Amino acid sequence: MKQLATLACTLTLTHALSAADPLPSWNDTAPKKAIIEFVEKVTKEGSDDFVPVSDRIATFDNDGCLWAEQPVYFQALFIFDRIKELAPEHPEWKTKEPFASVLKGDIKSALAGGEKALLEMAMATHAGMTTDEFAKIANDWITTAKHPKTGKLYTEMVYQPMLELLTYLRANDFKTFIVSGGGIDFMRPWTERVYGIPPEQVIGSSVKTKFEIKDGKAVVMRVPEIGFIDDKEGKPVGIQTHIGRRPIASFGNSDGDLQMHQWTQSGDGPRFSLYVHHTDAEREWAYDRDSHIGRLDKGLDEAREKGWTVVDMKNDWNKVFAFEK
Amino acid sequence: MKQLATLACTLTLTHALSAADPLPSWNDTAPKKAIIEFVEKVTKEGSDDFVPVSDRIATFDNDGCLWAEQPVYFQALFIFDRIKELAPEHPEWKTKEPFASVLKGDIKSALAGGEKALLEMAMATHAGMTTDEFAKIANDWITTAKHPKTGKLYTEMVYQPMLELLTYLRANDFKTFIVSGGGIDFMRPWTERVYGIPPEQVIGSSVKTKFEIKDGKAVVMRVPEIGFIDDKEGKPVGIQTHIGRRPIASFGNSDGDLQMHQWTQSGDGPRFSLYVHHTDAEREWAYDRDSHIGRLDKGLDEAREKGWTVVDMKNDWNKVFAFEK
Repeated sequence: MKQLATLACTLTLTHALSAADPLPSWNDTAPKKAIIEFVEKVTKEGSDDFVPVSDRIATFDNDGCLWAEQPVYFQALFIFDRIKELAPEHPEWKTKEPFASVLKGDIKSALAGGEKALLEMAMATHAGMTTDEFAKIANDWITTAKHPKTGKLYTEMVYQPMLELLTYLRANDFKTFIVSGGGIDFMRPWTERVYGIPPEQVIGSSVKTKFEIKDGKAVVMRVPEIGFIDDKEGKPVGIQTHIGRRPIASFGNSDGDLQMHQWTQSGDGPRFSLYVHHTDAEREWAYDRDSHIGRLDKGLDEAREKGWTVVDMKNDWNKVFAFEK
Repeated sequence: MKQLATLACTLTLTHALSAADPLPSWNDTAPKKAIIEFVEKVTKEGSDDFVPVSDRIATFDNDGCLWAEQPVYFQALFIFDRIKELAPEHPEWKTKEPFASVLKGDIKSALAGGEKALLEMAMATHAGMTTDEFAKIANDWITTAKHPKTGKLYTEMVYQPMLELLTYLRANDFKTFIVSGGGIDFMRPWTERVYGIPPEQVIGSSVKTKFEIKDGKAVVMRVPEIGFIDDKEGKPVGIQTHIGRRPIASFGNSDGDLQMHQWTQSGDGPRFSLYVHHTDAEREWAYDRDSHIGRLDKGLDEAREKGWTVVDMKNDWNKVFAFEK
C-alpha cells in the first residue's frame, strides 16, 4: 500500500511539473534558460552538480527585486504616512526638519538630509510600541495604502516573473528567503501571503527590542535604536546570523546586493547569482548607475565580468506586474 | 490518478501515525497526557482550539532540555579543549588566569572567575576565524570528544524522550526551533543530524561577525565581541528577531527559559509550556534551586502557580538516554 502510494504520488507530481511552463512571464531568452539549466542541474540525482535538498538555499532582495522601489522605497512612503498620522501627538514636528517638510508634502526637501534624516524619521515612527502593535500598523497600511503613480496596492506591485521564480524554486525543494535592506518587521506581516515566504525566512534591517512585563503581560518593545542594517556588507552577516549557511542562489538588483552575490559565489559547487536590471521606463522604471534608489553600478560591472545572469527587464520579461493588460 | 494518489498517501500516513505510541519513552503520567491533549486539540480542524499549520511554532532550549548539561555546559568543555589545543600559540596563557588553570586541568579554579572568565575564554577560542573554519572546528570536536562521566559522545547524551517529542510535533506539522543560551554556531553544525533541526531554525548566543574579501574570496569573519546573549530576557528577543512570531509551545529546564515561557503564554489561543525537572540522580543528575548550572527556582514556582507542565525526569521518563540498557 505504501509503495503504491509513493508511486502514485511521484507520477502525479512528475506529470504536474512537466505539463506547464514554470516561468510563463519570462521570455525564452538567456536568463530563463540559465535559471532552468541551473535548477535542473542541482536537482538531478547522481550528477556531479547535485545539491541535497537541505542545502538548496535561495536568497532574494526585496526592494527592486521582488517588488518595485520607485519613486522612493515603499517603506519611506509608509514612514511619511505615519508621520502625518502621528503629527497631532508631535506639535514640535511643524517646525522641525525633516518632519516639517513631510507634513507640507514636500518629500524632496524631507529627503534632502539623506540617510540621517530618513533614519531619524524611521526611529520616530518604528519604535515605542510593542512588536504586535507595530505588526498591526504595518499590516493596516499595506492592505490599504496605494502607490502614487499606479494607484495600486503596494503588494500588487510585485513582479510577476519573480513570483513565478519563487514558486518554481520551491517546487524544486529550494527554501526561499528574503534578504532586504528594508525593515524586517515591516515586511513580515505580509510576505507569507504575497510571496509564500514565512516570517522566519525574512531577514532585514531592525531596531533594537526589549522584553518587558507590561500590565502583567509579556511584551517585546521596539526601542528607537538601530539594531542591524541589512545592506551591502550587512547582507552576508544577516544571512549567516539567520540561516547559518551559504545560499547557492541569490537574486538582487542593486549594489546593495553585491556582497550577498559574492558570498553566494564563494562557496563550492554550482552557484547562481542574478541581477534584475531596470530597463523598462514604460512598464516600470529605467535606472541604474546614477540612481539614488537602487543604484546598480559596481554590481553591473562585476556581474558582467563574472558571468552572473543579468535580467534586462524590458526584453526578458513579457509581463512585469500581474495587473497589466 | 491524482485523487487515488492523495487517498493512498492519506491512508498510509493515517495508518502509520495511529499504529504506534509516538512517545514510548514517556510513562503514561500527566506530562505525556498533557502533551498529547494539546497536540490533538490544536490540530483538530473545526475546533475552537485549532491552530493553522503556519502558526505551529515550538521552541526548545538545548542545554538540560534536549541534551545534558552536567558537570558543566558541554560548550564549556569544548572551550577547555580548544584552550589546550591553542596553548602552543599562546605562551602567555601559562601564567594568565583563567587560562593557566585550564591548562593545569583545574576546571574549578578556571570557573571561579564566573561569567566574566568564561566569556574571556569563549572570545579567545570562538573568534578570529571564518564562520566556515569555526563550523569545522565545532564539528570535529562534537564528532570525537567524549563526556567525562559516561564516556559517550555528547550527541549521544541527548534525551530520548525529547527526540520523540520533536518527531511527534513535526509529524503534526509543528516547526521546531532551538532557542539556547549556547553558541548558535557551536550548535548549527550538528543539530540537523541529531535533532532534525536545520541551522536556520537554531537561535543562540553569538559573537559579532564581519564580511571581508580575503585572498579574493568572500568570507564572514568571527570577531571577539559579544553579538547577542540568548538567555533570560534575551530569549523572547531572539525569538522575535529570528522567527518573528510567538511560539505556541515552549520547552525549557531552567530560569533562563522563564521569559521564553512567559512570552509564549502571553499570546492568544491554546498555549503549552513545559519544564524538564532534573530529578534523577541515578540515570542523569538531580539539581534545581541551588545549582549554578541550569538553576530552576523562580521558573519552578511560576510553572506550579500557572499550571505549566513539569516533567519529573525520574518518574515521567522510562528512558533518559538511548544508550541505557
